Amino acid sequence: MNDIETTWLERPDALNDPVLIEGLPGVGNVGKLAADHLISELDAEKVAVIHSKHFPPQVLMHEDGTVRLVNNEVYVWRNPDGGSDLVILIGDYQGLTAQGQYELAHGLLDIMDELDISQFYTLGGYGTGQILEDVRVLGAATETALVEKMEKHGVEFSQDEPGGGIVGASGLLLGLGKARGLQGICLMGETSGYLVDPRSARALLEILDALFTLDLDFSDLETRAEQMDKLTQQLRDLEQHAEGPTEDELQYIG
Amino acid sequence: MNDIETTWLERPDALNDPVLIEGLPGVGNVGKLAADHLISELDAEKVAVIHSKHFPPQVLMHEDGTVRLVNNEVYVWRNPDGGSDLVILIGDYQGLTAQGQYELAHGLLDIMDELDISQFYTLGGYGTGQILEDVRVLGAATETALVEKMEKHGVEFSQDEPGGGIVGASGLLLGLGKARGLQGICLMGETSGYLVDPRSARALLEILDALFTLDLDFSDLETRAEQMDKLTQQLRDLEQHAEGPTEDELQYIG
Amino acid sequence: MNDIETTWLERPDALNDPVLIEGLPGVGNVGKLAADHLISELDAEKVAVIHSKHFPPQVLMHEDGTVRLVNNEVYVWRNPDGGSDLVILIGDYQGLTAQGQYELAHGLLDIMDELDISQFYTLGGYGTGQILEDVRVLGAATETALVEKMEKHGVEFSQDEPGGGIVGASGLLLGLGKARGLQGICLMGETSGYLVDPRSARALLEILDALFTLDLDFSDLETRAEQMDKLTQQLRDLEQHAEGPTEDELQYIG
Amino acid sequence: MNDIETTWLERPDALNDPVLIEGLPGVGNVGKLAADHLISELDAEKVAVIHSKHFPPQVLMHEDGTVRLVNNEVYVWRNPDGGSDLVILIGDYQGLTAQGQYELAHGLLDIMDELDISQFYTLGGYGTGQILEDVRVLGAATETALVEKMEKHGVEFSQDEPGGGIVGASGLLLGLGKARGLQGICLMGETSGYLVDPRSARALLEILDALFTLDLDFSDLETRAEQMDKLTQQLRDLEQHAEGPTEDELQYIG
Repeated sequence: MNDIETTWLERPDALNDPVLIEGLPGVGNVGKLAADHLISELDAEKVAVIHSKHFPPQVLMHEDGTVRLVNNEVYVWRNPDGGSDLVILIGDYQGLTAQGQYELAHGLLDIMDELDISQFYTLGGYGTGQILEDVRVLGAATETALVEKMEKHGVEFSQDEPGGGIVGASGLLLGLGKARGLQGICLMGETSGYLVDPRSARALLEILDALFTLDLDFSDLETRAEQMDKLTQQLRDLEQHAEGPTEDELQYIG
Repeated sequence: MNDIETTWLERPDALNDPVLIEGLPGVGNVGKLAADHLISELDAEKVAVIHSKHFPPQVLMHEDGTVRLVNNEVYVWRNPDGGSDLVILIGDYQGLTAQGQYELAHGLLDIMDELDISQFYTLGGYGTGQILEDVRVLGAATETALVEKMEKHGVEFSQDEPGGGIVGASGLLLGLGKARGLQGICLMGETSGYLVDPRSARALLEILDALFTLDLDFSDLETRAEQMDKLTQQLRDLEQHAEGPTEDELQYIG
Repeated sequence: MNDIETTWLERPDALNDPVLIEGLPGVGNVGKLAADHLISELDAEKVAVIHSKHFPPQVLMHEDGTVRLVNNEVYVWRNPDGGSDLVILIGDYQGLTAQGQYELAHGLLDIMDELDISQFYTLGGYGTGQILEDVRVLGAATETALVEKMEKHGVEFSQDEPGGGIVGASGLLLGLGKARGLQGICLMGETSGYLVDPRSARALLEILDALFTLDLDFSDLETRAEQMDKLTQQLRDLEQHAEGPTEDELQYIG
Repeated sequence: MNDIETTWLERPDALNDPVLIEGLPGVGNVGKLAADHLISELDAEKVAVIHSKHFPPQVLMHEDGTVRLVNNEVYVWRNPDGGSDLVILIGDYQGLTAQGQYELAHGLLDIMDELDISQFYTLGGYGTGQILEDVRVLGAATETALVEKMEKHGVEFSQDEPGGGIVGASGLLLGLGKARGLQGICLMGETSGYLVDPRSARALLEILDALFTLDLDFSDLETRAEQMDKLTQQLRDLEQHAEGPTEDELQYIG
């Protein structure tokens, strides 16, 4: 077995000006929520499955009692209006080790090469440690022209945010993609970091919606966001009465 | 030295419709207890020993003062009644790292390939955190036909149990075996997770007993289960008087 | 991708009696501060960038919103007065694992070989756990002639300091460089280990300044040292009033 | 760089019935103390140095201010009386990871192969958690004939001691050596596990002394043992007055 194995269900050919969008698990699961919603709303088609020794040795249960190995998956949405086709990467996990992260990022860049993709967006959350009313979207990019383009869409760029840079797949794809001459943008939705955050995911998707004229329906995300609002309120009420759940407990809610 | 070394004491040939049964250490040691009991009751023959750099650097003591390297072992039981021959995998450890788990699982699937085995059962425990009176057996499988077959034997399948999927060899063999076109079933006996649990192991074996008409004697397991019952009662008594042992301490009892 | 990738922006040729100076992050960031200051004061030129799977999967933000992958960098300063040219290694990180440290050290020794460098200085901090008024510079070397040479510059050598030897790149380069017949000296500035320590960095640079007649300006480092003095004083005041910040918190100040 | 590099200072030829003795750091540093004392008393000659990426990235200080990379070392003592020549392995560290332990053990078995060594003794401590008056020596071996031989020298063999088997180089060499057809014996001196234990080391050496008629002088070890006795007594006195040092602190004494 190779360290990374990509199985193509259908090798997509002749993609039109394709753009990759990556949304793997991370802070507030913002990137994953956004990419999952995108696939569901666009009814994108699964074309490849990626397995790796760098993921945990784990299977997940299907509804029918069968299992599937944890993985990353590649979906394709062919734009009916002649705009960019979207290739979307989602997954159960990022690589477990630093070395695994590097190898998986290179594996994904190889797939982009194979599909003639030269532009990509990586989606993630930016943990502020506070539950916020308004969600800013922070950005990072491989070149200044992309920074200027995204600023017009309300994305904020700052050397001090995120202060420690970007750790994980979203950042690494930019760093390694830049060296390969690709154009990459990282969009990070502000989030407390304690709870799965559908509203932060929506903030990212609104930008992609505008960029690619996707006309997305956000009602599912909004319903989920309202559920999280209620939960947040309950937690705040609890805090006023007692010590409340610890941060550790909060991380498993949602 | 290769990462995994399989030494054949005797290469079994012409196995009749062979089925592999895996029982490695894990939650409540349920799988290992069951497989050990199976080997002992069927008087199965050891045919191979597996060593690996993915196991701890450790030897265990024999009664006579000599040692053996920690390992996994393969046993064969030839069914005298013309039914399926059983190939049983037991061991001291699972792989220490995620990558080691993947490599060992592939190594075992290679052995199954070599012995023309296309069906397998993996045995494990499902930790509930509570000491239960009745033991359910939960299942997972590589295909729905197997789910239906096992439901007839009282195995329960649910997307929500185990909630986080199955971690370790029992799950991984299903995930990787499915990709190789093998038929695999994982049986998980409910157990508190605090104590070695012979009764949970028995619940798994009763299903295998019915499936393969093994006519197993469970008296040894029952004796051990009763010893654990007494220990459990003593622990409960202690809890009522004092704070009792911590969960950490409980994990080393039995 | 190789485990270590060195990208030459400009391969420096015909260096005059070149000496390498290594200053990577470590205790009190002393080595990194010193090497950064050296590059800035000498206006040295960046000639190579080193990326590796042994670094964290992380990018850092530029001021303009673009990112760069964490790395190590090689700078060259050509001595206008006919003395030794300096090759300076700085970086964001050392290798994350023991094995990564060994591979990166060998990679750097290969670069030294390529540039015909046979002498080098490694810079680091020696954590004393106390905030000190006077900073000693401790040393270690690949051969006794170098010990004698450095003692004349006030460097102290002792078998008992550092007691546990030298861990990380600064020590490893000496150990591995010695086996390749190179002449290496490690300079360690005393530091509390709690705070970034510009004064300890200055103590190291004063020795290099004397050795290579660099005529360095220390005003920037001094300003920063005074800021740290104020911070230290504030922390002392705090300690007298309350329990003060924990050591963990202090490690992130500066 | 290979994962393990053995540098021969002098390749010993024509050894007479050679026996290897391994004494690396471990519980109570018993094995290392014993092997160090053996080398010093026999005035054995250093013939090889082993470096490895599996050791920490660390150098140690010499008295003269120079450094050496942490390593393992091989010494040879040629028996003037026609008995077995001894090849002694000592070192600063064992391998840091399970995989490193396996690779280093194979490396050492390769050296034994090269030097035509078919018998070996591994030395270690057996931590009892208690400070004992009398020191038993526990044993393990690759074959029963060796068990019987050692029992005549007062070595005790028991399946229950050490209960968890033997972890690390001393055990692994037995396990892997047995598979290569070598004759190996592990000797473990009882020790509290809290303090460096020269008296436990002496107990091991007395057995080797009798086996190989070495006529060792134990006065150095005895002096050191008496120092440790005093320290132990001081610690006991402290315990009666106050809470005393924690086990963690004790581990760094000696």
